[in-house]
Amino acid sequence: MSILVLGTTALDTVTTPSGRRREMLGGSAVHFAMSASHFTPVHLVAVVGRDFPRRHVDFLRKRGVDVTALTIEDGTTFRWEGEYRGDLNTALTLSTQLGVLATFRPCIAQHQRCIENIFLANVDPDIQRHLLERMRSVRLVGLDSMNYWIDHKRRSLVRLLKKVDIFVANDAEARSLSGETHLIKAARGLRKMGAPMVVIKKGEHGAFVSFKDSFFCLPAYPVETIVDPTGAGDTFAGGFMGYLATAKNLNDAAIKKAISYGTVMASFNVEGFGVERAARLTKRDVARRLKRFRDSVSF
Amino acid sequence: MSILVLGTTALDTVTTPSGRRREMLGGSAVHFAMSASHFTPVHLVAVVGRDFPRRHVDFLRKRGVDVTALTIEDGTTFRWEGEYRGDLNTALTLSTQLGVLATFRPCIAQHQRCIENIFLANVDPDIQRHLLERMRSVRLVGLDSMNYWIDHKRRSLVRLLKKVDIFVANDAEARSLSGETHLIKAARGLRKMGAPMVVIKKGEHGAFVSFKDSFFCLPAYPVETIVDPTGAGDTFAGGFMGYLATAKNLNDAAIKKAISYGTVMASFNVEGFGVERAARLTKRDVARRLKRFRDSVSF
Repeated sequence: MSILVLGTTALDTVTTPSGRRREMLGGSAVHFAMSASHFTPVHLVAVVGRDFPRRHVDFLRKRGVDVTALTIEDGTTFRWEGEYRGDLNTALTLSTQLGVLATFRPCIAQHQRCIENIFLANVDPDIQRHLLERMRSVRLVGLDSMNYWIDHKRRSLVRLLKKVDIFVANDAEARSLSGETHLIKAARGLRKMGAPMVVIKKGEHGAFVSFKDSFFCLPAYPVETIVDPTGAGDTFAGGFMGYLATAKNLNDAAIKKAISYGTVMASFNVEGFGVERAARLTKRDVARRLKRFRDSVSF
Repeated sequence: MSILVLGTTALDTVTTPSGRRREMLGGSAVHFAMSASHFTPVHLVAVVGRDFPRRHVDFLRKRGVDVTALTIEDGTTFRWEGEYRGDLNTALTLSTQLGVLATFRPCIAQHQRCIENIFLANVDPDIQRHLLERMRSVRLVGLDSMNYWIDHKRRSLVRLLKKVDIFVANDAEARSLSGETHLIKAARGLRKMGAPMVVIKKGEHGAFVSFKDSFFCLPAYPVETIVDPTGAGDTFAGGFMGYLATAKNLNDAAIKKAISYGTVMASFNVEGFGVERAARLTKRDVARRLKRFRDSVSF
């Protein structure tokens, strides 16, 4: 079962204690796609400008990502520049240039309207809703957002929450949208707002899922040297949703496996700048780390 | 295999969003003992003043805690007053009255010198060393401390690190003593300083163990309403060390089980003020929650 991801495709300039990279391939949809493509075919829905390097498109295609719905518009590609200091938990945004993202309207091919698994990665909730309304036979819809939309398009986002199966948020977003400080209560609050399943990402502290009467929590996989945390959340979501897209049932076992895959994929992501580490990741690397992770948490 | 714990026995006055309790039974050794006594006989080594309520001694004895080495001295019992606000992660100390703790010299019976498992809960590292030197045939020694001793008796503490098997610290203490921000590196640094096994407690984010080539991490058990976090760290240590005291080998399986017991015991502790919840805890409660916890993290 393939999955379609809507989000940003960006050129990221990032500085961390490990160094600096200029105009790397990045964006929420790209990080998600790189991760999810380890599990299932991925269709990318995003926009770039005429300045977007051709080699990035080729790279995604080689990675098995369907770029039919990657629109190229007149104008410049979305650019983000950020810096991480100290414990690398929070990015300091130095600049954001929306470029063609400012007027983005997702455009998908007819055959893509029948894809059943969808991930609405972080973009304007109105754009997310626009795409979702075009889909014909949804089976599983995941949604991510960010504090900017929680603050500026709260109503649109809350309306969208009722139309998705899974809401994925980091701790700060979950607190901000639910109004609850305690994360377990925040997750419950978000479920009351409409999303049947809520996934809270806590960065170095792992992630948990609140769904029906179940609660699953896993720590992060221990990574000694974090090179660049950019995209870790989207990479987690890619592993989580990518695995669930292939799972027959949305039962407890599948959800736990999905969190573990999300965790392991995210741990690889932070070991390199941008998608550097993800680019040379093999199925064997993933399987080996999953086993180590399972051994370390099972008792 | 019984365990001997050295630490404080206190009268705690605590205010949290759930309410306030005056002069409850508390202290590092008490919280540890309440937890460890679920696994193995516990000998308490501490001091109280003449004002210490008789009923607290009876209560500990009833709980199966050997109070032979609970010295009663002329003077007042150690008192701590604190308040938790907001997310309950950090205690605001309102007052500390050392009383008889200021001149405490642990005094144990001859037969107690042969106890093989020892936990040096948070007191002055010179007192911890004094006790440890009196023990005859140690098998497993655990050590806890706090930022005050890291700042004021760093040299004594570092010397002691080389004489113990397990060092238990919270995240702030681990960072402060090792000088490393990244917790995995902090744990490694503390091991280089002498403790073969390091346990880092991260509060609501769980705990991890660094030992030889192994790394085990578990999230906290999800508790929806935290009533009072006082003593959660000592309760964790009590479950961890209490279980290990009964384990034949210090292998990976035993360590993982020990973390899980520590986690579960701590989760009960925070559900009531002081030792209220621990006081009415049954073996069945523990077994049931351990099973739920195992189900939630295994995949």
